[in-house]
Amino acid sequence: MNKLTTTEQFLLQRRTVRHFKDKTLSQEQYQRLLEVARQAPTSNFLQQCSMIRVTDVEKRERIRNICQQKYVGAYGDLIIFVVDLYRNHRIRTQLGLADDGLASTDAFIQGIEDTIIAAQSVVMAAESMGLASVYLGSIQNDVRPIIQILNLPKLTFPLVGLQIGEPDQVPELKPRMPLTLRSFENSYEDVFDLNHFAEYDATVKTYYDLRDRSKHVDSFTQQIASKLSQSHFKRDDIVAVIKEQGFCQY
Amino acid sequence: MNKLTTTEQFLLQRRTVRHFKDKTLSQEQYQRLLEVARQAPTSNFLQQCSMIRVTDVEKRERIRNICQQKYVGAYGDLIIFVVDLYRNHRIRTQLGLADDGLASTDAFIQGIEDTIIAAQSVVMAAESMGLASVYLGSIQNDVRPIIQILNLPKLTFPLVGLQIGEPDQVPELKPRMPLTLRSFENSYEDVFDLNHFAEYDATVKTYYDLRDRSKHVDSFTQQIASKLSQSHFKRDDIVAVIKEQGFCQY
Repeated sequence: MNKLTTTEQFLLQRRTVRHFKDKTLSQEQYQRLLEVARQAPTSNFLQQCSMIRVTDVEKRERIRNICQQKYVGAYGDLIIFVVDLYRNHRIRTQLGLADDGLASTDAFIQGIEDTIIAAQSVVMAAESMGLASVYLGSIQNDVRPIIQILNLPKLTFPLVGLQIGEPDQVPELKPRMPLTLRSFENSYEDVFDLNHFAEYDATVKTYYDLRDRSKHVDSFTQQIASKLSQSHFKRDDIVAVIKEQGFCQY
Repeated sequence: MNKLTTTEQFLLQRRTVRHFKDKTLSQEQYQRLLEVARQAPTSNFLQQCSMIRVTDVEKRERIRNICQQKYVGAYGDLIIFVVDLYRNHRIRTQLGLADDGLASTDAFIQGIEDTIIAAQSVVMAAESMGLASVYLGSIQNDVRPIIQILNLPKLTFPLVGLQIGEPDQVPELKPRMPLTLRSFENSYEDVFDLNHFAEYDATVKTYYDLRDRSKHVDSFTQQIASKLSQSHFKRDDIVAVIKEQGFCQY
């Protein structure tokens, strides 16, 4: 086995960090992260992602209240990654062209892809710079006010946030399920009998979550049993908001 | 300005490569890429992405015909990244639980996020290992037969492919639009008057696409005018297929 590259090591060792040191990113750090987002791969060269850094204290607090996570908009920096088809709509309008293609589900999914590719590129760059991050899917808890806070026009959608800063904790590496359950050759295979998860379940139960140091976490299958039954998937408003924003009309 | 990290350099210098040397990845290379995908960040720890490596010559050819790109399934390796909520559905079924949460649009979008995060992590690891890649959104040209070829059950969706191998070309770095048009502070701004794209348009026109060395490419705004009017956004079947697969029922 050849030595792992430093990039692979960052990828393999990356932890979600939720406690950061009491400082914001320097202008240079922030600019470097943006440059990486800018250069990220983009579907069909459409560049359909924008970034909004939230520095306003009141706006940070409002977003934190929506996310219901005390680290959101606290130490470090908060960046919202926005699916942005509005920019290309504006170009087309000025050229006298209709934009109906932008209202398709296909186009929205492409925009999501651009946006996550950019966000994950920033996550990786941050790791390599000695910074850490947490993805904030929690902005979907109530996405309408997020749109309002950021003054987002139609054909944009705030997809995920990243809170980025200097890490002030070292969580354990969270164990992922074995590749035998996630990768296949030529054909998908249903290898998901519960007993195939038994060893992994046991491993997951040894993991300590810093959010609650008093106990080990549930097994993986137990988490799937409980999480998917909870409020997490009751965020049904998302469909209405996506359509209100002009996406997925067909 | 401090020196860029090697990871940042890979991110900033990454080109889409479409011509690879006549070899496949070694087992070690492939395994290392899978390990990176496995460890990638995952929304709510649900791990809703699977990878299928396509080595079967006939399957590669069928996928190439759908993608209509001669490099697909040719030199190097072809990996299809699949949004996979079926695995968690199977866990829940065996535990005697309903899976209606998995049929929500919110859940599908989370699965897309997991899948693209994994794919982009693999792209980055590949760069650091001296490999190169091309994203294959083109599997969406006709996604039903892709589902059939890979024997994908309900609650799975083949989102993107990656063709990965040793690069046999050195494309120019494709210039992205300035950050003044893509990043904002606290509030989105409509800064998209056509004249703000003029300088970038001029830059894009100096780029040579190796797919057609005989001429420069169109300006960015001209590409937005022409691409979004074409067949690219006529892949409307995608909505029907997503629903057939059991996703986005509400």
